[in-house]
Amino acid sequence: MYPQPIQKLIELFSQFPGVGPRTASRFVFYLLKSSDQDIEKLIGAVQDLKKKTGICELCFNPFSRAESSSEDRLCPICSNASRNQGIVCIVEKESDLEAIEKTNTFKGLYFVLGGTLGQLRKEDLSKLRVKELKARVAKEGVKEVILALNPTTEGEATALYLEGVLKPLLKKITKLGRGLPMGGEVEYADEETLRQALEGRR
Amino acid sequence: MYPQPIQKLIELFSQFPGVGPRTASRFVFYLLKSSDQDIEKLIGAVQDLKKKTGICELCFNPFSRAESSSEDRLCPICSNASRNQGIVCIVEKESDLEAIEKTNTFKGLYFVLGGTLGQLRKEDLSKLRVKELKARVAKEGVKEVILALNPTTEGEATALYLEGVLKPLLKKITKLGRGLPMGGEVEYADEETLRQALEGRR
Amino acid sequence: MYPQPIQKLIELFSQFPGVGPRTASRFVFYLLKSSDQDIEKLIGAVQDLKKKTGICELCFNPFSRAESSSEDRLCPICSNASRNQGIVCIVEKESDLEAIEKTNTFKGLYFVLGGTLGQLRKEDLSKLRVKELKARVAKEGVKEVILALNPTTEGEATALYLEGVLKPLLKKITKLGRGLPMGGEVEYADEETLRQALEGRR
Amino acid sequence: MYPQPIQKLIELFSQFPGVGPRTASRFVFYLLKSSDQDIEKLIGAVQDLKKKTGICELCFNPFSRAESSSEDRLCPICSNASRNQGIVCIVEKESDLEAIEKTNTFKGLYFVLGGTLGQLRKEDLSKLRVKELKARVAKEGVKEVILALNPTTEGEATALYLEGVLKPLLKKITKLGRGLPMGGEVEYADEETLRQALEGRR
Repeated sequence: MYPQPIQKLIELFSQFPGVGPRTASRFVFYLLKSSDQDIEKLIGAVQDLKKKTGICELCFNPFSRAESSSEDRLCPICSNASRNQGIVCIVEKESDLEAIEKTNTFKGLYFVLGGTLGQLRKEDLSKLRVKELKARVAKEGVKEVILALNPTTEGEATALYLEGVLKPLLKKITKLGRGLPMGGEVEYADEETLRQALEGRR
Repeated sequence: MYPQPIQKLIELFSQFPGVGPRTASRFVFYLLKSSDQDIEKLIGAVQDLKKKTGICELCFNPFSRAESSSEDRLCPICSNASRNQGIVCIVEKESDLEAIEKTNTFKGLYFVLGGTLGQLRKEDLSKLRVKELKARVAKEGVKEVILALNPTTEGEATALYLEGVLKPLLKKITKLGRGLPMGGEVEYADEETLRQALEGRR
Repeated sequence: MYPQPIQKLIELFSQFPGVGPRTASRFVFYLLKSSDQDIEKLIGAVQDLKKKTGICELCFNPFSRAESSSEDRLCPICSNASRNQGIVCIVEKESDLEAIEKTNTFKGLYFVLGGTLGQLRKEDLSKLRVKELKARVAKEGVKEVILALNPTTEGEATALYLEGVLKPLLKKITKLGRGLPMGGEVEYADEETLRQALEGRR
Repeated sequence: MYPQPIQKLIELFSQFPGVGPRTASRFVFYLLKSSDQDIEKLIGAVQDLKKKTGICELCFNPFSRAESSSEDRLCPICSNASRNQGIVCIVEKESDLEAIEKTNTFKGLYFVLGGTLGQLRKEDLSKLRVKELKARVAKEGVKEVILALNPTTEGEATALYLEGVLKPLLKKITKLGRGLPMGGEVEYADEETLRQALEGRR
């Protein structure tokens, strides 16, 4: 059992995603050895995080907010007139949006759903921004919605659910193409992936 | 150092694909403990392998040959009239063909290329059945060729090369759809895969 | 489903230790592409395996036998007068003996037990050479027995059992030292290993 | 590129041991979703860490310090009269000490060296508490020193160095027993480990 101040911080770090007690203890000893300035820097950054970060009203993606004006309500992507306002790409979480932006391929807008069905327990199903999504898609000018959810059981279930919700509102609902990823091998691909790769051949 | 008869067999098994000396020695001790009948069975099966296996003249896929008639020259797939003779799916090796057949999706014919460019050293570039492929595609009735090669560097290089070779002979040359495989995650997909998944959205 | 001669050999290779159908099929296609001479070589080596290999009457380790004289009954180790006839190292299987010989540390003799308790189903408990072991240890001149079994549940169970069997026959029964292996780390060692490393400190 | 407050915190978390940008971003989004109270709790725990943690003057192990009295100078282990003051177990780092305590086997005292030779660049060789160690061992009553360093290249080098340093001061210098760890296998053990397991047989 580590001394109490160490133990307490280990417990808090252990709540971080994917962090176990052993990793958490390594974090604590790293901090214990860090200079007071470095620790101040970390504390400052944690304090600033929510203060200086706004959530976009349109896509719910976080964005940097000038401390002064807590007025700005749209993220750089949504407020970028040069982007195609007609296509909305629905992603599960912020890091998925980031990954798609990195490809420099998609020029439309996004919508961060905030989770998937499978993952969520009833009590926080509310986290799924379905109401907001319907309002978003109802907005004039939206011609296509891309369901960019993971081809996992959870993602598939969520996509199925959203298709039902959105069909009445909009004609064009698409999903990311399925198939072999770069570096994949025909021999090792599961049957479903191979099937979809054959049907989606171009 | 194991006794010579064991050591010799270890060396031969070590030449099997993906087998190192330790695995090879495990194989040898397995045989050493096997009954004489089981060893006879194995030897028999190895002896029969080439004798009873024919290579299809059309797709170069191996097939079971009645010992008597070494006349039969086509595999069950190529000689199956109910399959679509107009589509030829080019695969690198037999196990890829097997994997695609398992999907029960593809109803055309195949062509086993016998390797990929990257893998092959100059001296055995001959193993790549390019001449045979051109003859095959030139055959009357072939409307589409699917390049079902791995989306690896080697596979891509081979596909590029074959496109050049086949373009003069045939209009429709397709490739397996690229994208996220079942169970994949948007966040972890490489940029190229994600880009192709977006472009190939359906 | 592969053609029958291929399928049959896949099934036989799939019985090799640690080999699944996919690996087995790779083996078969490797043979299908091998030259007839290479296949003959393999068959020859398999046929020679048991014919040219004797099992030592004293330690049950396999050894190379001159085809002519199937008279020789002891392996090179047991018939090596310069080795310490007073210490017998009991190992589970031939590859364990090989591993210990590689260390060039042990100068006594061996005894191949032929398995461990845990692994064996009742019906083949007979495979464990307990009777032979008792006879071996009863032999004049044996001063120490080393139980060089794996520190696994199975190995421990077997060691416990053998201690009971051998205690009446002989005073000095030792086990391999327990502790951290080369490259191991104190932080990640399980409590039992660490405990034994502390007690066995030198 | 994430918004600046997020990006900044990602960079700070990326400096944590074993944390890459992707993991770091997951940490940040976890905090972004956390309640203000939880974030306050984390900040509080980080602020308390150094304030409420003392470093033992004898073994350099951290211990919980009553905020009031920054007088206490020994950790609970060193100030525990019932422990054997005659044996000092030298460990590389705090987590190693923790691991050994967990075994409930060792009843002596510790000394946290603060690193290993290999790891350390010249400039911070000072981190190795060699001077303090010599002083510690010179203390009256110390009969044995256990070098509980990892059996890694770095640990071995450090142990060798410390043996040279400590020999003049003290007769009994021991090391953790080497051998097979629980669950290890004779067949897969490296030669050195097996050699030491044979020599250390008990």
